[in-house]
Amino acid sequence: MRGTLSIVGVGPGDPELLTIKAARIIGAARCVAFFAKRGRLGHARGIAAQWIDASAEQLRFEYPFTTELSVADPRYLADIGRFYERCAGLLAERLGAGIDAALLCEGDPFFYGSAMYLFDRLRGAFAHRIVPGVTGMSGCWSSADLPFTHGDDVLQVLPGTLERDALAARLRLGDAAVIMKVGGNLPKIRAALDEAGQLGRAIYIEHGTMSGERILPLASLDHSGPDAPYFSMILVPGRQGPR
Amino acid sequence: MRGTLSIVGVGPGDPELLTIKAARIIGAARCVAFFAKRGRLGHARGIAAQWIDASAEQLRFEYPFTTELSVADPRYLADIGRFYERCAGLLAERLGAGIDAALLCEGDPFFYGSAMYLFDRLRGAFAHRIVPGVTGMSGCWSSADLPFTHGDDVLQVLPGTLERDALAARLRLGDAAVIMKVGGNLPKIRAALDEAGQLGRAIYIEHGTMSGERILPLASLDHSGPDAPYFSMILVPGRQGPR
Repeated sequence: MRGTLSIVGVGPGDPELLTIKAARIIGAARCVAFFAKRGRLGHARGIAAQWIDASAEQLRFEYPFTTELSVADPRYLADIGRFYERCAGLLAERLGAGIDAALLCEGDPFFYGSAMYLFDRLRGAFAHRIVPGVTGMSGCWSSADLPFTHGDDVLQVLPGTLERDALAARLRLGDAAVIMKVGGNLPKIRAALDEAGQLGRAIYIEHGTMSGERILPLASLDHSGPDAPYFSMILVPGRQGPR
Repeated sequence: MRGTLSIVGVGPGDPELLTIKAARIIGAARCVAFFAKRGRLGHARGIAAQWIDASAEQLRFEYPFTTELSVADPRYLADIGRFYERCAGLLAERLGAGIDAALLCEGDPFFYGSAMYLFDRLRGAFAHRIVPGVTGMSGCWSSADLPFTHGDDVLQVLPGTLERDALAARLRLGDAAVIMKVGGNLPKIRAALDEAGQLGRAIYIEHGTMSGERILPLASLDHSGPDAPYFSMILVPGRQGPR
């Protein structure tokens, strides 16, 4: 008897944007695992807190980094690989002992989620199911009252970690774009949007669907402040207006 | 006293993939509106059925078309515009009389949802809120056990209604792609994928998260059958495998 691994998306931040399926599976899990930044309780755990059974084991996986390194950086690759191996090992111990485990993930697990790195390591050995969630971008464009893609619009989702020229080239293709992983990449992203002639259409949003939510045109965001928070995003909507 | 318009995403098809917020708002609405194809009950209504109060008015908006026309087609533009005007008028009557209305939408409302056309017409006159939902694509890549975008991957969402050359040019940019609105566009989409050297990586999925779900490599899908159903999608995942 081996346990089942459920990888569960908890949505963009508002605890009410969890799905009914996620709430059920989290509530039934005897082990609930989640990632957390150094010194934090864990964002996904916070979103799902009310559904976690009080007697369930909680496994907190603390990231070895506090800032966003490029995935091309060799230090990042080596350290993060060891970290994911260790996390997968801890889950495998529980699953091997017949314990059902739920691994929580912000947004939707298979859309830029760290949970995929554990899934890749465990999928061959254990029964599993993936519970999709509402993405951060859906939460953000809904909060911003911003109809995003109509009809034949193409959507591009661009990590802010891309080089400036690559970002600008992609943005020049037009239609709708979402730029994720903003943080310290904001000045570069702003320059790429300007170069592509899209700065005037870009909306900046931080803490979308959460307390502290802030939505404004990117062009009117103060340049001189600290880095944008990790939970920030830039939205360039597709064609607007009724037809 | 005017009513509030809630535009509510009901997710990809599995009724358990509705959010807790959607269930609450649908249950409280005195009027529940939804789109339906000719001769069908309405797919979004079917997903949300268990949450609709038995005494609520149900407004069924039947599309004037049964097939997908290009949004560039002048017949489409004229007829669909009149249809959306009529639907918006019916909702405005309820909202103007102080009745709270929920407009249901498959997937996520602001992501290729028809509900946007009513939102565009009503947003200036009535209080509103948008409840994001799990997209069809998230449901599909989760069902297909297909981690989709990692790290610096770019995601492109491409309507299958695009011309073959435009599709192939976009697909040649690489990384992850989702092709929506497959239906009768399947032969063209297959040709574009082949031209871009991506046919071997493409996964075909129909009725994702629903009964009748079917997932297979696009290259092994029978060419000679009828058109792909409306609820079908093609997924080209980003980089795969553990790091």
